[in-house]
Formats: sequence, structure tokens, C-alpha cells
Amino acid sequence: MNKWVYIFSKEITDGEAKMKDLLGGKGANLAEMSKLSLPVPPGFTITTDVCNQFYKNNKKFPDDLEEQVNNAINQIEDLVENRFGSNDNPLLVSVRSGARSSMPGMLDTVLNLGLNDKTVEGLAKKTGDERFAYDSYRRFIQMYSDVVLNIEHHYFEDILEDFKVVNDYLLDTDLKGDDWKKIVNLFKDEVLNMTGTEFPQDVNEQLWGSISAVFLSWQNNRAVTYRKLNDIPDHWGTAVNIQAMVFGNLDDNSATGVAFTRNPSNGDKKFYGEFLINAQGEDVVAGIRTPQNITEEARLEAHSDSISLENLMPEIYENLIKLANKLESHYLDMQDIEFTIQQGKLWILQTRSGKRTTHAAIKIAVDMYEEGFISKEIAISRVDPNSLDQLLHPTIDQESEIEVIAKGLPASPGAASGKIVFNADDAEKASNEGEKVILTRIETSPEDIHGMHAAQGILTTRGGMTSHAAVVARGMGRPCISGAGSLRIDYETETIFVGNKEFKAGDIITIDGTTGSIINGEVKMKKPDLSGDFQKMMKWADQIRKLKIRANAETKVDATVAKSFGAEGIGLCRTEHMFFEEGRINSVREMILAKDEKDRRSALSKLLPMQKNDFIDLFKVMGDLPVTIRLLDPPLHEFLPHEEADFEEVASSLNIKIDDLKQRVSELVETNPMLGHRGCRLAITYPEIPEMQAKAIFEASVEIFQKFNQIVTPEIMVPLISSKKELQIVKDIIDQAATEIIQKTGVNLNYTVGTMIELPRAALRSAEIAEIADFFSFGTNDLTQTTFGISRDDASKFLQEYVDKNIIEKDPFVSLDIEGVGELIEISTIRGRSVNQKIKLGICGEHGGDPNSIAFCASNNLDYVSCSPYRVPIARLAAAQAEVEERKKRSE
Amino acid sequence: MNKWVYIFSKEITDGEAKMKDLLGGKGANLAEMSKLSLPVPPGFTITTDVCNQFYKNNKKFPDDLEEQVNNAINQIEDLVENRFGSNDNPLLVSVRSGARSSMPGMLDTVLNLGLNDKTVEGLAKKTGDERFAYDSYRRFIQMYSDVVLNIEHHYFEDILEDFKVVNDYLLDTDLKGDDWKKIVNLFKDEVLNMTGTEFPQDVNEQLWGSISAVFLSWQNNRAVTYRKLNDIPDHWGTAVNIQAMVFGNLDDNSATGVAFTRNPSNGDKKFYGEFLINAQGEDVVAGIRTPQNITEEARLEAHSDSISLENLMPEIYENLIKLANKLESHYLDMQDIEFTIQQGKLWILQTRSGKRTTHAAIKIAVDMYEEGFISKEIAISRVDPNSLDQLLHPTIDQESEIEVIAKGLPASPGAASGKIVFNADDAEKASNEGEKVILTRIETSPEDIHGMHAAQGILTTRGGMTSHAAVVARGMGRPCISGAGSLRIDYETETIFVGNKEFKAGDIITIDGTTGSIINGEVKMKKPDLSGDFQKMMKWADQIRKLKIRANAETKVDATVAKSFGAEGIGLCRTEHMFFEEGRINSVREMILAKDEKDRRSALSKLLPMQKNDFIDLFKVMGDLPVTIRLLDPPLHEFLPHEEADFEEVASSLNIKIDDLKQRVSELVETNPMLGHRGCRLAITYPEIPEMQAKAIFEASVEIFQKFNQIVTPEIMVPLISSKKELQIVKDIIDQAATEIIQKTGVNLNYTVGTMIELPRAALRSAEIAEIADFFSFGTNDLTQTTFGISRDDASKFLQEYVDKNIIEKDPFVSLDIEGVGELIEISTIRGRSVNQKIKLGICGEHGGDPNSIAFCASNNLDYVSCSPYRVPIARLAAAQAEVEERKKRSE
Repeated sequence: MNKWVYIFSKEITDGEAKMKDLLGGKGANLAEMSKLSLPVPPGFTITTDVCNQFYKNNKKFPDDLEEQVNNAINQIEDLVENRFGSNDNPLLVSVRSGARSSMPGMLDTVLNLGLNDKTVEGLAKKTGDERFAYDSYRRFIQMYSDVVLNIEHHYFEDILEDFKVVNDYLLDTDLKGDDWKKIVNLFKDEVLNMTGTEFPQDVNEQLWGSISAVFLSWQNNRAVTYRKLNDIPDHWGTAVNIQAMVFGNLDDNSATGVAFTRNPSNGDKKFYGEFLINAQGEDVVAGIRTPQNITEEARLEAHSDSISLENLMPEIYENLIKLANKLESHYLDMQDIEFTIQQGKLWILQTRSGKRTTHAAIKIAVDMYEEGFISKEIAISRVDPNSLDQLLHPTIDQESEIEVIAKGLPASPGAASGKIVFNADDAEKASNEGEKVILTRIETSPEDIHGMHAAQGILTTRGGMTSHAAVVARGMGRPCISGAGSLRIDYETETIFVGNKEFKAGDIITIDGTTGSIINGEVKMKKPDLSGDFQKMMKWADQIRKLKIRANAETKVDATVAKSFGAEGIGLCRTEHMFFEEGRINSVREMILAKDEKDRRSALSKLLPMQKNDFIDLFKVMGDLPVTIRLLDPPLHEFLPHEEADFEEVASSLNIKIDDLKQRVSELVETNPMLGHRGCRLAITYPEIPEMQAKAIFEASVEIFQKFNQIVTPEIMVPLISSKKELQIVKDIIDQAATEIIQKTGVNLNYTVGTMIELPRAALRSAEIAEIADFFSFGTNDLTQTTFGISRDDASKFLQEYVDKNIIEKDPFVSLDIEGVGELIEISTIRGRSVNQKIKLGICGEHGGDPNSIAFCASNNLDYVSCSPYRVPIARLAAAQAEVEERKKRSE
Repeated sequence: MNKWVYIFSKEITDGEAKMKDLLGGKGANLAEMSKLSLPVPPGFTITTDVCNQFYKNNKKFPDDLEEQVNNAINQIEDLVENRFGSNDNPLLVSVRSGARSSMPGMLDTVLNLGLNDKTVEGLAKKTGDERFAYDSYRRFIQMYSDVVLNIEHHYFEDILEDFKVVNDYLLDTDLKGDDWKKIVNLFKDEVLNMTGTEFPQDVNEQLWGSISAVFLSWQNNRAVTYRKLNDIPDHWGTAVNIQAMVFGNLDDNSATGVAFTRNPSNGDKKFYGEFLINAQGEDVVAGIRTPQNITEEARLEAHSDSISLENLMPEIYENLIKLANKLESHYLDMQDIEFTIQQGKLWILQTRSGKRTTHAAIKIAVDMYEEGFISKEIAISRVDPNSLDQLLHPTIDQESEIEVIAKGLPASPGAASGKIVFNADDAEKASNEGEKVILTRIETSPEDIHGMHAAQGILTTRGGMTSHAAVVARGMGRPCISGAGSLRIDYETETIFVGNKEFKAGDIITIDGTTGSIINGEVKMKKPDLSGDFQKMMKWADQIRKLKIRANAETKVDATVAKSFGAEGIGLCRTEHMFFEEGRINSVREMILAKDEKDRRSALSKLLPMQKNDFIDLFKVMGDLPVTIRLLDPPLHEFLPHEEADFEEVASSLNIKIDDLKQRVSELVETNPMLGHRGCRLAITYPEIPEMQAKAIFEASVEIFQKFNQIVTPEIMVPLISSKKELQIVKDIIDQAATEIIQKTGVNLNYTVGTMIELPRAALRSAEIAEIADFFSFGTNDLTQTTFGISRDDASKFLQEYVDKNIIEKDPFVSLDIEGVGELIEISTIRGRSVNQKIKLGICGEHGGDPNSIAFCASNNLDYVSCSPYRVPIARLAAAQAEVEERKKRSE
């Protein structure tokens, strides 16, 4: 026989805190508290297994469930000496959901179950309080109807409001027992009216209706959405907790409240909470009455006139503090506790780890370590790495009044204000004149990079979370809102149309990349405060983690930011970003338009000193930290203009015929540029390009040595390799350049040559490739594109539907697809190391800053991950957490 | 000690025919013939290992090679009782290359080695023939200088011609001994003049110079090119054969010749060959004198006045026939024999399997089986499957005079004549009026398919061997020349410009897709003759092979062709091809331009009856053979116009605004359409499309059953799957459609649902996918694109350079990349079968008709390959050969 039902009570308790998977968080904690002899009303939990059986079996319950539930009800009846459905001494129960992980407000709850036209009389008699009994009954009808019968709340609220108006009552508390009796009748009529059947009087029908409803609520839309947003798998299911009711609304010696063992907002070690006299739990949540402070200190701070629990019921308060401390030191984490006081007796209804802000999470974890409660390993695991993002960027001061004019996708966090500009050149010009600007485009392309750099923030009306604008902005740490579809941009008149408003170039707007809000005018900002606790926690993370964290960066500025955030090197310097800068794009174009190798070499020789200086800048910032430099990767047409308007300008600045330019552009256009003439394929067909780049790297190394006596070890990375021979050819060019420069300068050079693994074939052929590669860097962006056969630029047309239809759990460009792309990385790692034990392995690309992907890298023993500068702290913490998980696995 | 040198002679022979890898073809056969006691001049072979050592070791020979060569020379001296370098009795030798596989004319040879100013006197004395001795010496100087000293032939030929003019000689045979002596001096002066050193007199210097030169010739340009064209790996290397000279040019009782045991041109079982009296081997090749026939029959047929060997030297002739028969029945294949008659004695210098035409290859193989010499397995292995292509298409009559106006790429074999038309609609119109046309385009796109069908042949000025035109034409069996870059097409004036010629619409041209020649006017053609021997061989192939052969076909015509060529089903019916046909493309466009699902369904309902009729046509042709139908695959924008000129026409025929059309086109445009919104992604976002297609398939099945009482089992194939969930969603749609039609009609339906495996992720996740798939069809075109990250449409920009630089051996879109793509197929096969033993596995795409790829499929035990109808016979033969190879492997 399967055990579907687990009792909890002072006397008998089947479960414990460890059994969260089976009993859900609430159920497990109720069991644990019962074992700890805390004053918990007795009850039982129907397991999450039943939920899964229910859905597997066409929404039918296991055959033997009913018997087990009836037995459990009997045991509760014995414990509280009431009878379920008894007219004299009725047992009332609550029916609540409880999944493995807390899903606040997402699942349904029914209170006061067990009331009907007869038992309500029994309750009235027993408590001597008709008002209370009928108020409880009407609450039950309202909740049951909402949850089980799908009659929305507002129907009942309307009845109640009408009744109050007719009878000239102001507050609910003005209603007497008789009034509630009338309300009950009106409510029951409404149910009959809406459903065609009487409100159920059979308490068992009520019970099973509610159990079904809670299980069904696991698949309601909000729950499904919440799970998706919070990475909770479908198959976890929810448990159902059925518990004897206690009443905070019996009289003025009763109350209900919520308390936190520490302040969830700032993390201060101060007991914190709110309560309502003579109320049921949902009244606190509903916000009809203003709750009172629990502690006197909080009351004073809030300048509240309502008495604190500390002063109102000092004994109960002491007891609550004692129990709360017991729970915190038992669970070793800040607790969020629900309690009810029934006629002077304190009951604990729930405890769980409390939700908290990132700021509080860090402070609580650091404090609890320093108080000796938890280890560093646990402390660093208490903070969601992704949440650090909030701390690293300026944020909008919550106090300020703002006018949100539209919403877009929160593509890159942080907030910024500035004048609207509509193109990259204007952005750069204004920035040079000291203006702050928001670059506002329909969409961005590589040609806009200098403008994105110059701007405070980027706003686009097209494109998703992985559009060009979003990816580049995140890399630069610029706030960005993408895909703000309700805005229409007219480039000609330099106007944004939104609703019936218009904004012109030069008007000031504010964008909040953390929320996606576009705000009229300038807004007050709060600067990031990376306080002592933050630094402490980061230091612990650094002590624990094994993965090195590097950053993707090309400029002095980005490299400096990355280093200040703790980057231990540059894992990806995309040299093509350097090609787009003003003053050199023309030389790049000359090189592309060259008719033969000679002309190409002449254009390249103009680029060489510029590239060299780029590398000198980077090397100076990074000191002896490693710098991985990727050779030119994108197809050449990305550097040429594509719009009619630009042809003329470019042709004249290059002093060539417009038709020749168009001709060359059309020759270079590709059907699938992602799979085209790019990466090492460029290096192989135009060997003079990698030759120039290698020379620039080596000449920079020599100069750094000669001027600063500093030895750098650049790691030169060849992109888009699919075979050993390709790498060999490009490596030979690099080695040749090195030999020449060593001979010319007499300075010895330290460098390594490695490759991106970003094509499935490269992953499969890793054993061969590793014979001549010093390192592999998994280019997970392109590897995801080729493994799935999905173009990141085009995926928006169907990827969201894929997530919605549960075909994929997450956008694979955001979180690594471990089953597919991950297997290729594993294969490559194993094969690469099998022939070259010293090979250095890392990943670069968007996934380098994603905690799940970092955990995958840690479990595969990669050497490093490389991410955007602003994600370095996130990666440091995630890597430490991954190492803690790895240690757990190893010790299992 | 390594054995580098293998002696062959009547007395001692180290090698044998089996040792081709080590001794090369020539060396192994010389050893074998020596063992058979055939009259072979003694000699020795330096192994291919030495060649590899030579290149590995910076072009130095192994240390102990010299000693082994000297010993071998000594043994030869003893056997022929001459001495190398002796002034009285000099041993002369030939030095010839000999690789594992014959590479005619690609490697170098030196004859008469051992002659110098002194030994030539000895030779003159010994033979009593000064003319012969000095003629031999001057030949040696000429060959040695060419091969070893890099002085081209023509310098010496000029000297000889001048001498003849000055002395009033007409023929070489007019020169006396004294004349040759003078020539020798002139030749030596030329050598001194060109190189600054005397012609070497040391016979050992001569010998090692020649050995080095032969090894070096392995890497000369023609050899490298030849190997590439013939799939001969670099690492095979060549052997060097050093053999005592015999002389066919000693007197009129001497001769030299070449003989075939059967006719290499038509395969007739008739001894066939040519010889020259008083000549050395190269005279036959040089073509200065016209060789005489060996047999009297051949002489009569050729109306030659020169006496046949049969009549001239009847005894030698009889002996030659006897030896030739001995060799053929020893080697069990038609032999190509080189012989020399020295003063009435017959010597055999070489034997090898003779090259032959495809026609002859089939006839000889069939005859030899019927004569009891060889098994069916060996017979079918004697024909290169690719060569069958020549037999299946009309060819240009070799006798006719033709004017080639330009050359392009031989993109699809066969020849065709017709009037020039410049667009698909004109092609269709003319074809309907009974005209034969050649569709002439800059390039083709899917919109041109109806015109390609209507045309006799297709000519494009852009695009490579895997361009749209090439791929589609091969699929249809239409001759095609692509990338004819020297033609310029002006669509406006409907003119082709080529050189200073112009061709207008309506002018007749002929294209030869087998050679790439574009020919002025109409040309006489020869129709394919698939004779009795061809059919016999195909039948044997069918008996032997295990792989089933299917065809890729959509139309009744293609399916009929495929069936006539022996296809055992349709492995790929690309339903989108049906969408392009006139009369329905408008409904397709309506469907794409629909604003919502309702409009889309309305457009689809117009398509349904058309698709249904397509399937009825196919089912009728294929009878009970399986038909695999792939659901709509390409991105929708492929069905919309892209050129300004077309927008207006399409907009008006659809009765919509041109701007709306442009808007929709721009919405649908993709950056990388290959990786975009296509395949099952379309089916998932627009489920009404697969629903319509499934209904069309099932309604067709029902009608076929009701009208003809024939049960068809369509195999419905879902493209571009990357996960099980995708397949599940589309399969559910298909199953739902089936259920509805079964309910509606009461007719039961047989069908299976499977998937393309054409993405790396699908290959990796095959275990899951196979749980719900009835079959996998490896879409090797797309799988190659994604595994390599190479777009087939853009590859022409670098792929040829990759082949030239030896980065890849062959275009992976032509011959399957076994190391990369192949491993994914293996992984998928293993994982798929691990959960679903009954799963049917096949490949479709270009590789299905490539013998190497077919061999790979056979070795992985796939169930079938599917290829273009015209490649079905090739695939049948290749599959049989693969099975023979597999049996060999199994028995090893």
C-alpha cells in the first residue's frame, strides 16, 4: 500500500523537514515544527505523489486515498476532540496547497471548511458567538465558491457592499450575527443562481471538492507562468495540507500575523512583523485594514498610533520571540512565520525561509556566518547570483514620482536618463560635447557600436532579449530596453510617437532596463553601493570557487570595469569591435574593397598601428592577467554599408565609384551569413588579415616589454574551426609572424594559440584539434545556433512560442542547453583532454554569465568562464555555489 | 633492418601481386609475373615506404637504402651477366615509378640509364650497332635532363630538328651512328649550357638522381591534381622500379607494343593491340609513327596497309596470345600488357588491369562471369557506379562537328538542344506549344521550378555544382550547366553576350551537362542504350545488396522515371515543390498573407484538394511501394516575390495593396533563413498547415482504396526536429487528422510518422526521439550545413580553396563527411535503435546517390538510401558493392 497521507501533530508526526519533495515546503515544515513541539494545530499532508498520480490518471485519485484521508480526519478529530460534520462540536479545517518551493499566491486555499447550515449553528453555540460563526460561514462560502466552483470573489463582495449600503453600515465589523446570517443566505442564493445547484452541505463533498481544486490549481495559468519564471519543473507537483482551524477572529483577544526573524528589506537583525487583532489570515493580505507593528521599535519608526503586540500582549510577544528564535536557529536561516492567536493562545501556522531583497540576503548571510550559525559555503549559497545584477547598476529612486510612457523588454539592467538621439553618430557627437544621451533606434547593428558606447542607455522598438542591442548593451553594462513595440520611430522627422504623445530629438527620457519602463523626463537615481558585506561575500566566493572568471572586453574602459568587478583576465577580445571605430572603419573598408592582395596589404598596413595601440591599451590595464584575443570573425559585408543613404557617403569618403561599392557589397552578400565566409575561413582565404593581427599583437607585446618591462602572454584564438588543418594553417601564419618579430626585435614572445569550439564538427574532432591547440574556448552562442539549427537573429519568430508550449524550458541562448549543446561540450572536453592534458578549457559568450550554465562548466571541470564585465560578480558567486554543489556530490 | 628493396627475376623474387601497397601496382605485378616464369627482364623495386620516409625525413633516404640497392644491382648484374658502368659490357636499366593505383603519365620514367661516354662505346661494340648505341644515349640524355635536371624536352627536340634541316634529313631513321654521336655532343653542350655542369658520367650519380626524381615526381602538380581527382591519398606514395633494359629498337627483328586481352572500348572478347617495329616504348606513346595492328582481324577492320604482328611474326604472336591469356586467367581481369621484342625474343614489361569505357566494363564483367572466371560479386565490383551516369542520359554524337561557344560547370549530366528562353513562364508556355527550350538564367530560385521542368535543359551564369539550378536539375534528370561566367545575360533585351557573339531568345543552342560545353545550334544526339548486359548487372546488384534504394520525387513523371530505374519507393517527396506550381502558388501566398488563423484556414482549404490530387498521382504510380512525404519545410518567404518587378503582379493577382505585400515580405525576411522559421517550426506555429497536409495525404489514401482497392502506407516525415516534444506536437496533429478521417469515411488508414534527423541536436537526442518515431531519415544536406556551420548557398566563396589547400578532401555536400557528419549519423543510429529496434533508418539528400556515402550507410546497416531518380541505378550498384565490401570485412 502506498502511503499518501502524512499526519502532523504533537503526538504523532510522520514527516520531517527533509521531506520537502514529498510533502511540499509547508507540509514538511508543519511536520518539523510539530516534532519540535511547537504549538501547531494538528493536521495531515496529502503528498505531491498524489498530485502526479492525479494528472497521470486523467484527474482521478488513487483508489486507496479516500480511506487514508478518512483515517487521518479521524485522528485529528480525536486530537482536537471535535467531529468533522458534527452539528454540536464541528471540526473545521483549512485546505492549503504547498509545493516543494514556495509559490506565494499562485495556488489556492480554502479556510473554515466543514461549515454548513447545521454545523454553523453548533459553532455558534460552542463559541457563544453567532456573529463569528456566520462570518466564518460566509467567508467559507466565498472562498469555496471561488476556488472550487469558479465563481469570482467580486460577486460576493458586491452583495456585501450592497447590503452595507442598504443597511447604512460602514465597516464589516458593524455587521451583527443576524446580518451575517442574511449575507450567508444571499451568498447561497448567488451560488444556486450561478451554478444551478445548492451550495454543498455535505462536509465530505466540501473536502474532496477542495482537495481536487488545490491539485487543479497546480496547472492554472498563474501557477504555470510562475513556475516558468522561477525554473520550477512541472513534475514537482503540489501537496495538500489539511489542518484543524484556529481562529484569529474569535474576539479581541485573538489575532493573526506574519513575522520575520530579521528585516527582509535591509537584513537588519531585528525581529520584524505585522498583525491584526480579531482577524483571519487573508485579512492581512487583503489590505483592507492596516496591520499593526509587532515590535515597539518598529511602531516608533513608522510613527504609528496603533499599539504594538509587544505592548498589547507582552507574554504572547515574548513567547513569539522565543519560538521565532528557536525556528531560526533550527532552520539556520531567516524565517517567515505565520501565526494566529486564538483567545490568548499562540499558534504557529507556517514557517519558511523568508523572501528577502538582495541587499538583505547578503547582509543576513554574512551576519549569520559571523554569528557562527552557518559556514561560508552555506552563506554564499544564500544569495541568488542573478539578483546581484540589481546592485551593480544605478536604479531609480523608489521615492520619486515617475510618468511611465511605455514598456519594453528589460534587456540590460540599470537606469539612465538622457536626451533622445536617433543615430550613433549623433550620440557620439553629443557625448563628446558632454551631453548625456539615450540612443533610440528601431534596431541596432554592428555599425552602431560607437554610438552605443557613447550613450547612457539604448532603446529599441524591435528585437528581443537576445537582439543585437540587448546583447551588446549587456556586454557594455549599458541599460537597454528592447522591443518597445508601442513606440513608433520616424527617423526622417526625428520623432517618437507613443499613444498621442510625441518626443523629439533632444527631449529627455529615462529608461529603466531592469523593469523595461520608459519614463518621461529625468528621474532621480540611486548609485550602486557595493558595501562591505558585498565585498566580504565576494571574497568568500573567490576562496571557494575553482572556476576562473574572465570578462569579454575590447576597450580600456570595459577592461577596467571588468577588473574592478574581479575579472581574472579577458576571455574574449573581439577584434572586430575595434574595426568599427571611427577613423579606422575607412581603412577596414579599403581593405575589403581592395582588388588584390597588394592593395589589401596596403590597407591592412594602415590598420596595423591602430590595432597595435588597442592591444597596448588592453595589456596595460590587464597587467599580467591573461588576455584572449580572437582574430577577425564576422563576414566582411558587416563592415560595408547596406542602406542606399549610406552608399554615397561611404563611396565619396573612400573616393571610389558608388557603383563599384554596390557591386562589391552585392558580391559579398550572403544567404546565411552566420554560416558563411567568416571566422577562420576569412583567415585562410585572406592570410594577410591574420598576419596583420598577429603582428599587431606581437608588436604590442614587445612595446609593453620594452617600455614597462612587463611580460604579457596573449592567447590568440582562431574562430569557427571545424578541423585540425584549418587551425594548423592559421597557427602557422601566427607562428611565422612571431618568428619574424622575435628576429627583428630580439625580444622573446610568450603566447599561446587556441581555438573556439563553436561548431558541432569541432566538438566531435576535438581529439585531433587538441593536438595543436593550447586552449579551447567554447563559443556557446554559435554552438547553440548550429546544434539547434536556430539563428539567434531570427528565433524571436518562434522561440517564445516554444517556451510557452513547453517545448523548451528556457531560451537556449540565455541558459545553456545541457542535453544537446552540453553533450557536445562534454564530448569535446573528454576528447581534447585525452590527447592534451594541459589544454586550457573555457567558455565565452552569453552563457558565461548564466548561473545554470556556470554550474554545468564547473561540473565538467572547465578552467574558466568569460562573461560581460557587469556579470563578473554574478559569475564569481555562481562559480562558488557550483563548487559547493560539486563538493556535495563528491561527498555523497 | 628494414627491407627497402625487393628483387624480381625468374630465379629469385621477393614480392608478389598482393603486395601492391608496398611495391606499387607495377612492382607487384612484375614480381608476380616473374614468379609465373613469364619472360620479364630482371630488376628490383624500392618500396613505397621509402617514398614516405623520404618526405618525412626532409627528402633524405634511409641510411641503409644505398647498400640494399647496391646489392640488388649486383644480383641483376649476375643474372644478366652485364656490369653496371662497365665499359665493355654495360648493364642498362630503366627507372620507373609505380604507385598502388595506376596514375598514367603522371609520374616520371628514365630509360637507358647507365650510358655515358665510355659505356656507350661498349654497347656499340657489343651490339655491333653504333647507331643504336648513340641513339639510346641521346634518348637517355634527353629523358634524364627532363626528369632529373628539369630541362624541358623541346630544347633537345629543337637541336635534333635543326640538325635534320641542316643535314637534309627527313626522318630520325635517316640518321647514322655518326650523326647521333654529334647529336649526343650537342645535347651534352646544351646541358652544360643550361645547368653550368657537365652531364653526369658517373652511373651511380645517374641512378640516384633518377630515383630521387621519381620520388619527387609524387608531389609534382599534375600528380597532386590527378590524385585529388581520383581520390588517391597522399600517403600511399610511389615505389621505384629499376629493371634491366631490353630493346625494341635494336633492329627490324625488334619491336615494342601494347596489348589488351579484350577490347577496352566496347568490351568484345577479342585480343587487341598495337606495336611498332624497331622502336622504344615512348615512340608508341609519342605518336610520331603510326602503330601497326597486332591482329589480322583488326588490321582488316582498320583498312590498314601495315602488316599485322600476327602475319609478321606468327610465332611471337602465338606466344604473346598464350602469355596474355595466361595473365588474364591469372589476374581474372582484362589485362593491359606492355611488351618488347628484342631480336626475336618476347619480353613482358608490364601487366595491369586495363582501363575501359563504362560500356566495356559492364560487358567484360558480365562475359567473365558467364565464362566462369569470376563470381557475380566480383563482376559487379568491376564497374565504377558513378560512371553509369554516362549511360543514362542522351550524349552528343562524337562524330558530329560542333562549335563550342563557352564552357561552364558540368552540373547535371546529359545533353540537350533547344531554343533559348529567359524565364520560367516562357519555358512553360513554349513547352506547352511543343517547343524544346533551354531555360537560361543568371541563377534559378524555387520560383523557377515549373520552368525547369518544362525545359530540356538549364543554363546559368552564376552558382556552383551545388547551386539551386544544379541540385534541382540533377534531381529532375535535366542536363544543366551552371556558373558559365563568360556568358553575360541581359534580361531586358533577352540577349546572351559571349565574346563578340550574341544570342537572342529563340536561337537554338545545345548544352552538354556532362562536359560543361555550350554549343551553337542543334547537335546530333545518341540516346541512352540500357542494353541486356546493363540489366543483367543491375539484377545481380539487386540480388546482392541489402540497402533498399528509393528516389526523391514529387511528380508523376519523376516517380515514373524513378520506378523505371528500379527505385523501391519514394524516400523524399518535398511537398513544397507542389506549392510552386501554377494555379496554386496564389493560394499558397494567400495562406501566407492571411491576417489570422481563419483566413489562413480558408486559403489552406483551397490547397487541400490540389495536394490531395498530387498524392493520388504519386500513390497510383508507386503502387504498394512506400512513399515518404515530408511536410512543408522551407521558410514562408520563399513563396513570396522578392524583386520589385514581381510585387505589382503578385499584389494585383491577389487583389491586395502592394505596400501590404511588401510589409509582409519584410516581416518574413530572415537573416539566416537556413536556420530560421521553417520545418517543424512552421508546423508548430501554424498547426493548420500540417493539419491540411495530413488530411490531403489521408484523403488521397482513402480515395485510392475506394477507387482501386489498393492499400497505401504513406510515411509522413516531419522536418527539422530538434527534440522529442516538437515531434510529439506535430505527430498529434497528424494522428488527430487520421482519426477524424477514419471516423468520417470508415476506411482504416495505414501510415507511419517519422522525422528527418538533420540537426546535430536531433542526432544527439535520438534515443528520446526514437520513442515516438517510426523512422529516421538523415537529411544529410542540412546536417552537413549545421555540423560544419557552412551554408551551402554561400560555400562557393571558400570551399574550392579548402579543397585546393587540402583542408578537406572533397566537397562535403557531394560526398558525406564521415568523420564529422558521419559520427552524428552513427550516434543517432545507435541511440535510435537502442530504444526502438524496429525503427527504419535511411538517408535522403544529395549524398543518397554518392557511392562513398552509400558505402557508409551500408556499413552502418541503414535500411535505405534515397536519391535523385537518375542516380537510382548508381545507388543500386554502389549498394551492392558496399555489401560485397561488408562481407569481406565480416569474413576477415
